[in-house]
Amino acid sequence: MRTTIKDIARQTNLSITTVSLVLNNKGQKIPEETKRLIFDAVKTMNYRPNKLALSLLGKKTYTIGLIIPDISNLFFSELGKGVEDCCREDSYNMILCSSNDEFLQEKQSINILADRSVDGIVIVISAESFGFKYEECLSTIRTTGIPAILVDCFDEAGDFSTIAVDNNEGSRLAMRHLIELGHRKIGCITGPLGLKTNVDRLNGYVETLEEFNIQFDQTLVYEGNFRYQSGYDGTVELLAKNPTAIFCHNDMMAYGADKALKDRGLSFSKDISVIGFDDIFFSAYMDVPLSTVKQPVYQMGRKAAELLLEEIRDSKMPKQHILFTPELQIRKSTAPPRML
Amino acid sequence: MRTTIKDIARQTNLSITTVSLVLNNKGQKIPEETKRLIFDAVKTMNYRPNKLALSLLGKKTYTIGLIIPDISNLFFSELGKGVEDCCREDSYNMILCSSNDEFLQEKQSINILADRSVDGIVIVISAESFGFKYEECLSTIRTTGIPAILVDCFDEAGDFSTIAVDNNEGSRLAMRHLIELGHRKIGCITGPLGLKTNVDRLNGYVETLEEFNIQFDQTLVYEGNFRYQSGYDGTVELLAKNPTAIFCHNDMMAYGADKALKDRGLSFSKDISVIGFDDIFFSAYMDVPLSTVKQPVYQMGRKAAELLLEEIRDSKMPKQHILFTPELQIRKSTAPPRML
Repeated sequence: MRTTIKDIARQTNLSITTVSLVLNNKGQKIPEETKRLIFDAVKTMNYRPNKLALSLLGKKTYTIGLIIPDISNLFFSELGKGVEDCCREDSYNMILCSSNDEFLQEKQSINILADRSVDGIVIVISAESFGFKYEECLSTIRTTGIPAILVDCFDEAGDFSTIAVDNNEGSRLAMRHLIELGHRKIGCITGPLGLKTNVDRLNGYVETLEEFNIQFDQTLVYEGNFRYQSGYDGTVELLAKNPTAIFCHNDMMAYGADKALKDRGLSFSKDISVIGFDDIFFSAYMDVPLSTVKQPVYQMGRKAAELLLEEIRDSKMPKQHILFTPELQIRKSTAPPRML
Repeated sequence: MRTTIKDIARQTNLSITTVSLVLNNKGQKIPEETKRLIFDAVKTMNYRPNKLALSLLGKKTYTIGLIIPDISNLFFSELGKGVEDCCREDSYNMILCSSNDEFLQEKQSINILADRSVDGIVIVISAESFGFKYEECLSTIRTTGIPAILVDCFDEAGDFSTIAVDNNEGSRLAMRHLIELGHRKIGCITGPLGLKTNVDRLNGYVETLEEFNIQFDQTLVYEGNFRYQSGYDGTVELLAKNPTAIFCHNDMMAYGADKALKDRGLSFSKDISVIGFDDIFFSAYMDVPLSTVKQPVYQMGRKAAELLLEEIRDSKMPKQHILFTPELQIRKSTAPPRML
């Protein structure tokens, strides 16, 4: 059972009153030796004042909550690492909940964290909420009265600070790179187009074609779902249109593209240039290392925690909307087109 | 601010007493219409009874805690997914803390979860605790009085249920596979030998050599640290001894081995057979897909949650010690030695 003040009193042969006075910093008249006895017992018996009880009195708990859509996704766990590291440096703790990308679980996670008296919340809103329940999700957060930061979401109209990466610019970087290498017929495998992130990336593709006076061809766009297999299937379908390059809107789909090419005796860069988006760990270590658009996801996590801790300290902090600039990471999977 | 009974009363123009009676299931005499008014307000205003206060009264919170050494490590996040999925099916929630593989942070995580009234804890003990603080870590858990399950740890002597994979057997599977292919000079790149897990794997290597009457050669063993670079460095060093195969004690080091071979114009399977341990996501998708020993990590997570929920329901449950059997996953990186 949890150690109580009673246990400390029994262990030290002192009265509960004496122990309580010392632990509540009111033991000025109590001999140092007695205090030392008590503090030694506190340590050996792992006594901790009941933080839940303290938090009912409105005290800070020095713990923040993080809600992400999927803990088994490398992108989110890297973000979590950034949040965690920043918290640790400031002597805060982080607890994490997953929404499983579902609105109801997300709502429950918000309430679980609120019930456990976190001082603030960093949240990556679930795909389901983004689709239909965005306002309801934000209103759930508001009713908790706890400061929150939205990550992977850019909402200047809202009343929360937000952090996102400039997806449109990321797309433009990838496309300019391919076009400058000489590519004109560029396939595109997108994520689910119900999400703004993915529409932004698609717009970046279309707008860069316009910028270079290249006719947009709808048949060169394949709507994938960010998974390996959809990169494979999209590549198979696009190959029939003879593109010289394919822009995959995440790295995982680029891995699928790689496999589809290999299965047809083709290869990255020599036969078809492929560029990804994210720069997850493995992309640097592929057979032909993948050119991609790097999202500074760890830094985004750190920044989210930093903003949140500022807001916890000063509730009057003006809301901020921070857009991170992605970076082009040129490796070996992109080259001038073979026919040039 | 958090919605209180007062807010509900104000919103519905009812007395605090009426609202309180209805919400505490003592409103038998109150008209149905009034009750409906109150429940509607509860829903729109996201009112929730204060669970912290309830938990002070010793009630269950239907939430368990998971402590892992590193959230950005795929192995642990897959384990977390297993714990989470099992909890969800049983209407439990999971909250996660990271120990950063440090004893002090781990102790803090245990206390954070205990302070937040989780009904139970699943913990993967940190490398630091395993090294020097194993008993102190267990005693911290005991002082919370909360049921706990230890994962990736096999301790029949202890007073906690434990779940682990049979590391020795995993090693034997890998070694028998290589020896049956005809390999006799097999290099070995281990993890840090301060951890029992890794000693078990090394013993499996040594014992299988004995089983096949192959002389053990100390110079064919390189102590790595589970990271990519140590797989690379270990391979470079071992190549000088001309092994025909290398057994890497995790997949990440096998990726490093792959790169070291490629940088020397050699390749997986054709020139040197390489086998890993873990079977993390990418191993199936490599240029030459990696043969490896699969740890059923997702299932281990599920089983841990299952045991914990049983123990929460029945504190008299006898402790269990479950050893999962790893499976050989033969892909393309292993083949008969070239010279055979």
